[in-house]
Amino acid sequence: MFDQIRKHITGRVQFTEDEFNLATTFFVPKKIRRRQFLLQAGDVCKSLAFVSNGCLRSYSVDNKGEEHIVQFAIEDWWISDMKSFLTNQPSTYNIDALEDSELLLIDKVSQDKLCCAIPKFEHYFRILLESNSSAAQLRISDFISSSAEDRYLNFLKTYPKLVQRVPQSQIASYLGITPQSLSRIRKELSEKK
Amino acid sequence: MFDQIRKHITGRVQFTEDEFNLATTFFVPKKIRRRQFLLQAGDVCKSLAFVSNGCLRSYSVDNKGEEHIVQFAIEDWWISDMKSFLTNQPSTYNIDALEDSELLLIDKVSQDKLCCAIPKFEHYFRILLESNSSAAQLRISDFISSSAEDRYLNFLKTYPKLVQRVPQSQIASYLGITPQSLSRIRKELSEKK
Repeated sequence: MFDQIRKHITGRVQFTEDEFNLATTFFVPKKIRRRQFLLQAGDVCKSLAFVSNGCLRSYSVDNKGEEHIVQFAIEDWWISDMKSFLTNQPSTYNIDALEDSELLLIDKVSQDKLCCAIPKFEHYFRILLESNSSAAQLRISDFISSSAEDRYLNFLKTYPKLVQRVPQSQIASYLGITPQSLSRIRKELSEKK
Repeated sequence: MFDQIRKHITGRVQFTEDEFNLATTFFVPKKIRRRQFLLQAGDVCKSLAFVSNGCLRSYSVDNKGEEHIVQFAIEDWWISDMKSFLTNQPSTYNIDALEDSELLLIDKVSQDKLCCAIPKFEHYFRILLESNSSAAQLRISDFISSSAEDRYLNFLKTYPKLVQRVPQSQIASYLGITPQSLSRIRKELSEKK
């Protein structure tokens, strides 16, 4: 159950066996089935979720009932609504599973206790967040300066594993375009080849 | 020179006088004048910059010579190209000063040494990055699901201090719209009042 997170973390920070065993006590394992919710808009996001196995997405729903995907998460990724997690305010996002998934959850109090008990975890979360910050900067930059076609090409290059697992309509939503626009872009790209 | 960062950090983490004095030795003060560059595209982003005083922006320039603003930073904010900072690869962004500014720079080696010497700084950077991550999620969400008018209204609400200090054309660029579109939006909003 902890094999995936052990591999993920030890690729970034070195832990002793005792430290890792202690760390596992701060997490709560959770299985969710495809289409089940981890978070529903209106509820507070109480935990960060590490994906041991499966695929999830976070998204908002607008007044017209349209979904807008903010984030995907597959193995080794974390998913949450960070604002709600930090402020304890109700979330405006939903998080649900696109595949049957196995997660490790950690709430705010446990995360802080873990970082106190094993300061290397403070370091781990810092470097994880630095890397998230870098990815978010690139995505924002893409939105303000790249065409929809370039955003799609960047997505293919950056997340080749996701492309295999997520329906095209969801990728379109993540890119902020309609499924029809994405179909047109894919057709044009295949004609260019 | 360190008053601003002392106030900023002690609002988040408690330090002793000795710890703070030690911390200051890891930073390099830098003054830059309006229009001067802190980083030019093609160079590696060697430091994170804390803004003690002034206003900066980071932006890319596309093939047509148009600027796209990724980030602003005023007092108490940090600015960098995180990807270039983490990977040591040349940056695709420029960072320059919109006002005469006073900065405190810290490079990667010094940041890591500081976090080792005073682990509370590891905690400080973690909570800083959590808060950045929350803001980035909201901005991404805005791009995929909000109209240009709503993005502008959110900007006014979230960054009221910036609105006073940054030209409208730069705000338009930050929002991913043309200055003409922003003028139209502002006109329509003032007519609604």
